[in-house]
Amino acid sequence: MVYTVIMAGGIGSRFWPRSREAYPKQFLNVFGEATLLQQTLQRMKGIVPPARSFVVTHQRYGELTRRQLPELPAEHVLEEPISRNTAPCIAYAAIKLLAHDPDAVMMVLPADHLIRDHAAFQAALRVAIEAAQEKGALVTIGITPTHAATGYGYIQFDGNLDGKLHAYPVKTFAEKPNVATAERFLDSGDFLWNSGMFVWRADTIVESIQKYLPKCYAAFLGLGGAIGTQYEDEAVHAAYRKSPRISIDYGVMERADTVYVVPGSFEWNDIGDWRAVYDLSQNDDHGNVLHNHVIVHDSSRCYVDAGSRLIVLVGIHDAIVVDTDDALLICHRESAQQVRNVVEYLHAHQLEQYV
Amino acid sequence: MVYTVIMAGGIGSRFWPRSREAYPKQFLNVFGEATLLQQTLQRMKGIVPPARSFVVTHQRYGELTRRQLPELPAEHVLEEPISRNTAPCIAYAAIKLLAHDPDAVMMVLPADHLIRDHAAFQAALRVAIEAAQEKGALVTIGITPTHAATGYGYIQFDGNLDGKLHAYPVKTFAEKPNVATAERFLDSGDFLWNSGMFVWRADTIVESIQKYLPKCYAAFLGLGGAIGTQYEDEAVHAAYRKSPRISIDYGVMERADTVYVVPGSFEWNDIGDWRAVYDLSQNDDHGNVLHNHVIVHDSSRCYVDAGSRLIVLVGIHDAIVVDTDDALLICHRESAQQVRNVVEYLHAHQLEQYV
Repeated sequence: MVYTVIMAGGIGSRFWPRSREAYPKQFLNVFGEATLLQQTLQRMKGIVPPARSFVVTHQRYGELTRRQLPELPAEHVLEEPISRNTAPCIAYAAIKLLAHDPDAVMMVLPADHLIRDHAAFQAALRVAIEAAQEKGALVTIGITPTHAATGYGYIQFDGNLDGKLHAYPVKTFAEKPNVATAERFLDSGDFLWNSGMFVWRADTIVESIQKYLPKCYAAFLGLGGAIGTQYEDEAVHAAYRKSPRISIDYGVMERADTVYVVPGSFEWNDIGDWRAVYDLSQNDDHGNVLHNHVIVHDSSRCYVDAGSRLIVLVGIHDAIVVDTDDALLICHRESAQQVRNVVEYLHAHQLEQYV
Repeated sequence: MVYTVIMAGGIGSRFWPRSREAYPKQFLNVFGEATLLQQTLQRMKGIVPPARSFVVTHQRYGELTRRQLPELPAEHVLEEPISRNTAPCIAYAAIKLLAHDPDAVMMVLPADHLIRDHAAFQAALRVAIEAAQEKGALVTIGITPTHAATGYGYIQFDGNLDGKLHAYPVKTFAEKPNVATAERFLDSGDFLWNSGMFVWRADTIVESIQKYLPKCYAAFLGLGGAIGTQYEDEAVHAAYRKSPRISIDYGVMERADTVYVVPGSFEWNDIGDWRAVYDLSQNDDHGNVLHNHVIVHDSSRCYVDAGSRLIVLVGIHDAIVVDTDDALLICHRESAQQVRNVVEYLHAHQLEQYV
């Protein structure tokens, strides 16, 4: 059977002050619809039902996740005692699935991406599922780039895009490039954006972790037998305590042999910062995106979320303004990535009440 | 005897959202010291005691004025039932003074200016008092311009500055100039900024109002006999109802014959907008002026008053940010004059709760 595993453990510090440690990005309703987490589950409608969907998140978000996804069986929310990046998260989910279904195929999806074309997205997933089952491959979803983005990693594949959906063998994974390299990637025609979405058989990824991340594998070795017993919680804690902190991209994907990519041509955004939220929002004649009570005078290309008070802009351009009850951010649109530095500053200066 | 008459009826809409109709600029503590009104009275120490000082303000600010100036006799706060610009305000004060002292000399001072050099200021006033008494003149205080300001009116005088304090005959009053004209004024050496501060005998100004503003004079004709009686309040209301709305500059000063100006060379600012507050404040290494809880990252030349919440700036330059409990302003420094348009907008859109 095919299962969805949603990774929802991020803290989203680039969305401060709306996103807080107690309430990160994936639980927010930044586009006036459902939260990003809810959208991630909804997007799977017709391909996998909630009964075969799982969420892995930090234990502090367990209750919040169950509240936001009441259609999910409560025990399908897997709680991590410590954040250890994506490899342990995926190991945990794979072991959990294997305990019930030795033939489980898992689709691993980040909880905080925006994809509006569900049909195109699901079509790519179906091709990926097929490749995972037939080839025993580690399959990732790549995104056909629309511009020379420097904020994403890239995947080079072997072959030529022919307009049909295929799984292509992966040649290389490339880190976030500089502008010149990103332009070269774009021109080459055989580079895709690395979306961080994966499809594989649960046993395939566990074997790959054993091969490429033996310490991580060893940490989780005891978990399999404990699933469904009174020792499960204890085994999970022990596994996370022992596991190294490492991403599945760096730890497995970049090293494994049988890696494929399915190029998705749907609009995709990992909503990395407020700038992305601005870009993805409908703006008015002056390029402004205004939420709640905002008055603008001679101002353009601004994103303003006013919270409970009136915000007035006079002669302001290209700014992001996000208000909350106890803190307000005013940020230049081009500086949106630096918002995470603010959160670091708050931590470093004993201002945790704002984090 | 010499008296101080402080004009404190303005609503200060360019200082929104700190300044509200219920709490205008002159009652605010924008420089971390006393309020502008309190500073105006303090600045007269040594020249006129509080017992010979008066404040004219709108009746809605009567109590606030008495609260801020407890050293002033309560009955020295003269309340205007309607705002009618400066000519009626001055007529009221002059008639009030004349009822008790036919030889009263009055110094008329706006409540919302910043002057830090009290000694130089008082020296100019003493010369003005002498001219008002000896020449029976209408005397105004001019300010030696330090740059080609376009936000002030100008006064051209007859004579040459010789470094000593004189009262010079006034040749012309000039409206706020454009940049080219302001530069010409500055180069000419015989133009001063019009500060809106006046010194004259009370009887001289009443006679001048009779001559140049007969309708205003007629409106206040009945007041003289009512001062000190049970009919005084009623007479004040009747006078303001009948009086035209006109400034003393336009109505009298620009037309009268015996007009003198004393050039003051002290630092002076009418604090016309938030930009002026920024300019007059001590700023840090990045040119920022930060009040209350503000964190700045890669931001410069900003004025931020944070109220009760944390404000964080990232990549923001040349902005004015003023927070209050129910409204927040974000304004480019060069757009500070336009803040009054916001107040007009709020009135026009039934948003009086924010005014």
